[in-house]
Amino acid sequence: MSLFWAVLGRFIQPAQVITTVFGAAVLLGTALLSSPLATTSGRPSDWITALFTATSAVCVNGLTIVDTSAHWSPFGEVVIAALIQVGGLGIMTLATVFTLLVSRRLGLRARLSAQAETRVLNGGDLRRVVGKVVVFNLSCEAVIATVLTLRFVVGYGESPGRGLYLGVFHAVSAFNNAGFALWPDSLVRFAADPWICLTVAVAVIVGGLGYPVVFELRRSWRRPKRWSLLTRITLAVTAVLLAGGTLVFLVTEWANPRTLGPLDGEAKLLTAFFTAVMPRSAGFNSVDIAQMHPSSWLVTELLMFVGGGSAGTAGGIKVTTLGLLTFIVWAELRGESQVNIGHRRLTEAAQRQAVSLTVLSAGLVALFSYILLVLTPHAPDKVLFEVVSAFGTAGLSVGVVSAVSPAAQTLLTLLMFVGRIGPLTLGSALALKERTRRYELPEEDVIVG
Amino acid sequence: MSLFWAVLGRFIQPAQVITTVFGAAVLLGTALLSSPLATTSGRPSDWITALFTATSAVCVNGLTIVDTSAHWSPFGEVVIAALIQVGGLGIMTLATVFTLLVSRRLGLRARLSAQAETRVLNGGDLRRVVGKVVVFNLSCEAVIATVLTLRFVVGYGESPGRGLYLGVFHAVSAFNNAGFALWPDSLVRFAADPWICLTVAVAVIVGGLGYPVVFELRRSWRRPKRWSLLTRITLAVTAVLLAGGTLVFLVTEWANPRTLGPLDGEAKLLTAFFTAVMPRSAGFNSVDIAQMHPSSWLVTELLMFVGGGSAGTAGGIKVTTLGLLTFIVWAELRGESQVNIGHRRLTEAAQRQAVSLTVLSAGLVALFSYILLVLTPHAPDKVLFEVVSAFGTAGLSVGVVSAVSPAAQTLLTLLMFVGRIGPLTLGSALALKERTRRYELPEEDVIVG
Ligand SMILES: [K+]
Ligand SMILES: [K+]
Repeated sequence: MSLFWAVLGRFIQPAQVITTVFGAAVLLGTALLSSPLATTSGRPSDWITALFTATSAVCVNGLTIVDTSAHWSPFGEVVIAALIQVGGLGIMTLATVFTLLVSRRLGLRARLSAQAETRVLNGGDLRRVVGKVVVFNLSCEAVIATVLTLRFVVGYGESPGRGLYLGVFHAVSAFNNAGFALWPDSLVRFAADPWICLTVAVAVIVGGLGYPVVFELRRSWRRPKRWSLLTRITLAVTAVLLAGGTLVFLVTEWANPRTLGPLDGEAKLLTAFFTAVMPRSAGFNSVDIAQMHPSSWLVTELLMFVGGGSAGTAGGIKVTTLGLLTFIVWAELRGESQVNIGHRRLTEAAQRQAVSLTVLSAGLVALFSYILLVLTPHAPDKVLFEVVSAFGTAGLSVGVVSAVSPAAQTLLTLLMFVGRIGPLTLGSALALKERTRRYELPEEDVIVG
Repeated sequence: MSLFWAVLGRFIQPAQVITTVFGAAVLLGTALLSSPLATTSGRPSDWITALFTATSAVCVNGLTIVDTSAHWSPFGEVVIAALIQVGGLGIMTLATVFTLLVSRRLGLRARLSAQAETRVLNGGDLRRVVGKVVVFNLSCEAVIATVLTLRFVVGYGESPGRGLYLGVFHAVSAFNNAGFALWPDSLVRFAADPWICLTVAVAVIVGGLGYPVVFELRRSWRRPKRWSLLTRITLAVTAVLLAGGTLVFLVTEWANPRTLGPLDGEAKLLTAFFTAVMPRSAGFNSVDIAQMHPSSWLVTELLMFVGGGSAGTAGGIKVTTLGLLTFIVWAELRGESQVNIGHRRLTEAAQRQAVSLTVLSAGLVALFSYILLVLTPHAPDKVLFEVVSAFGTAGLSVGVVSAVSPAAQTLLTLLMFVGRIGPLTLGSALALKERTRRYELPEEDVIVG
């Protein structure tokens, strides 16, 4: 078997596989959404609307240039949901496969000295792991869809059929961190409804943690001391970002009459939490993002840039990357000659991957912001928000994306694509290409990107 | 002698020394500028005006909340020039001393294996090096002052006395990268005058390269192959940033009627070059920065964040840091297991220092931007510009700093101080605290910060 993995690892170029799969899905989606059947008006959409929406769905981004429920027919909506499912499941599956591939190859080389490498996701062969991912994904969606459907039927008087349709669509959209909603104001009308908001928030968090972490939690829930570095960093950074984000939004928007102001205390807390969860990177909103204070935008941008967990449905540079950077800085400030996290020494390779991913991502955001500032007349703060949202596959919008020219929309389409497949591609490609490794002490690798 | 260095290295904490020296200079400057003698009106300035201006001068920042020539009397202007000279020379001297200290201590430990470490600035003992720095600083300023004085007298009909006063003030302000000017519109009136603009630009570049680089260039001008890594990186990144910045400003502002538009072709080129030089980090301007296109602001912000060379008068994270990050990313993209630059392997310590400095700096800018967005009603893009300018000691302004409350101005004062002494302090403290180093191959260190 090890020969099989070695040969496979040599011939499969993750960048090519991922780009091809996602590119094909986008093209197919564009074709389907270009059909007159896909719109409520019965007239075919123009090419940029179809391309942008298909890319947004496949890349589980959620940015839209038309109102989803008004523009697209039920057929169009089903196509969008299917593209989200393919995109979300696709990225998870591919991420899992390449993670496995990386850990196998490392295992092959360093079996004697670094057993720890293979602790994450060593549960079986490729087919079994992909099967587990698919089953887990569909099971979670089923649970979420059930809760949402019940709430829509019982709480809002929808017919069972319509309730199920809404429940399934938003379950798929939430668990895959896509953020497409069938109401023009996203979920603003449910801002004070914990059944909807908490269900969606939990779906987003679980989907965005990433499979390696979720599976390890399921396997050894009661033994936190045996959790891998990846799981510990992901959970810690996630907790800090969610708590910090909630606090900031609560304080900043408390009295804003156009956001949290009109809500009562409990609903304020719920909405602030919801708003802190969504940048990682689902992109639903239960307040009007465009009406938030500019300081809240800045915080949202930072959260969107970071995104969620590795090898999940979330985008951004990933919480693991932020965690690694924090540990590098901390070790440096303490004058340590190595970066140690919880009795493990962080590999140089992981450090450099974290740095490279962050630098390249920041460069990409700066470059696209510059181009869009040149191309469009919109205010720089709004342009930056939209660019970070497109890059981080967050899908939150302050209104720029639907108001710019097709040229700018095409650029944002490209950025959504690169933002989605870039970090994973880069992470996998870098890890697989790594030419030599030295093993001196027990080390442990975490996935970057 | 080596015992002396070892003992000194153990007891001097760079952070304490630098903070104390600069804090004392700021307090003395504030006291002097609070005197009624220092203002044209004869009434004492309020505390924030005196504190802000003194900090801006000592930290060679150049941000102002009052018009320098209108508000301050000749006595006040002389105090400002003296503070600039003390601040500029102080940071260079301290940087040089600590650089020397670091290379000595390394030399002590690793004399047999890493002779390369001591190649930069190994020319003599402490007193001689500091003497060289002071002599070089004053000589350069004398040359610049002479050129400027001649131009003011011959080209603009100033009296010899007034011409000399203006020449010396702006020579000190330019070479120390301070950016204080005695005209309300900075150097806009000289936009098309190459005598003034090129002289100031050269002064800014030479002062901002940093002493280690300048001295090495003087010593081995004809033997580029023997230049240290520090010198090669500094020159290469400087050249790229200056050429790129000039090109961007030329293209973006070419037809802008409020910036380059009214100028002829040659003056356009001169002004674009001047505008590209000033963010690193002198802060004079020959066009109205507030009238530039937002995309030009973005580029200016990036240039200000990077700043100039290490151990010089420039601020920011330094071009060396940007260079190291670029090489780290490049090595990672190529799948190298080590970062090699020009037949040298970059130390892990230098890599981590570059990363730490950049992450902390970006965090500082984000934090201060957030606070100022909460405290002031100004547009986010302008706030960000001003924060980056204060952090990078650039001193360019789009008008926010003079329009905000004393509380916000106090925060910006703090940021100017931290932005000036932070990178050097951090760099020195990190390098001196470094506990263990391994030497496997010939390595070479560069200064970060
Ligand atoms: K999304
Ligand atoms: K300056």
